[in-house]
Amino acid sequence: MTNHKQAIVLLSGGLDSATTLAIAQSKDFECYALSFSYGQRHRAELVAATKIAKLAKVVEHKIFEIDLATFKGSALTDHNIGVPQDYMVSTTGIPVTYVPARNTVFLSIALAWAEVLQIEDIFIGVNAVDYSGYPDCRPEFIQAYECMANLATKAGIEGNKLKIHAPLILLSKADIIKLGNQLDVDYSNTVSCYLADELGKACGL
Amino acid sequence: MTNHKQAIVLLSGGLDSATTLAIAQSKDFECYALSFSYGQRHRAELVAATKIAKLAKVVEHKIFEIDLATFKGSALTDHNIGVPQDYMVSTTGIPVTYVPARNTVFLSIALAWAEVLQIEDIFIGVNAVDYSGYPDCRPEFIQAYECMANLATKAGIEGNKLKIHAPLILLSKADIIKLGNQLDVDYSNTVSCYLADELGKACGL
Repeated sequence: MTNHKQAIVLLSGGLDSATTLAIAQSKDFECYALSFSYGQRHRAELVAATKIAKLAKVVEHKIFEIDLATFKGSALTDHNIGVPQDYMVSTTGIPVTYVPARNTVFLSIALAWAEVLQIEDIFIGVNAVDYSGYPDCRPEFIQAYECMANLATKAGIEGNKLKIHAPLILLSKADIIKLGNQLDVDYSNTVSCYLADELGKACGL
Repeated sequence: MTNHKQAIVLLSGGLDSATTLAIAQSKDFECYALSFSYGQRHRAELVAATKIAKLAKVVEHKIFEIDLATFKGSALTDHNIGVPQDYMVSTTGIPVTYVPARNTVFLSIALAWAEVLQIEDIFIGVNAVDYSGYPDCRPEFIQAYECMANLATKAGIEGNKLKIHAPLILLSKADIIKLGNQLDVDYSNTVSCYLADELGKACGL
């Protein structure tokens, strides 16, 4: 352990997580970046995440393999379900692009790494405003996760030390980009479109 | 969906999870069994789990690959740390055999499968009495996990439908075996020793 504050940052390669990494660093956290290869169709995300992590000079960038595609039922991993082009504007119900329990699974693996590294801070770039249909992007989910994590781990037993940071959770997309620009985030390296592999970065959606 | 109640049961291949599966079936749940290949040294567990699942005629038995060994720091996955022979009787502190956030990770993957299958009941054979050093084996952890899961998922949004069952949590090992015998669990198929691969089933600990 160094004297620096350390954090794990979930890094998808999208705009939100790139901004979240910059926020964590602006708060003087030494950052470990964690990305997931989970059977998603948009592998371009992982290329972007690698580039962002390198530019940000994180301590370590780990790409964790987890085959969520083995559980069918989501357009993001199941090739038999088409991705609707208007998924971003869907405000009713739960989007077809929802991956079951995704943030729960990703945070849990981050928690495992945090325990090994004796890190007490985890950053995740979830955002309740734009993705209102995803149950695991809401503030009450993050709070409940933090509560659970403090009962699941050594750091928790030693006194509720574990903190899940979701600094974007109530921001609009415009506010996120404004904040990212203030922190010099280079958005040209991000991939923020689920169809990126098919359409290229400038898919225009 | 059938008219039967359905459940996912975490099945390690040990005595506790074999009993938990029998309990779930005795409550008329149609069971899906979920095991993990997580870089553990005791692969004999997975052979045992497969045998138990087959004998119990579960609907499906899935072995999910997840490389927790990529995070060092536990005797169970890190070959550089020796497994102490007296780990079972350790009552002070957190045992060296603790795998970081293991039950959190395993329950999260069970939750993902549950969402896909539209199953609302998950059984886990954790036991607070014998393994008092593991923070994620305590009733308060299970309760907090259930609370979080109901905020993370569709089933939760529709009204706190998700239930994490831990029927052994307050039982002694003797009571578990007594209950298992009443339910005709064949314990000869279980592997309940972390050193099973090295010492064989009858390692005598």
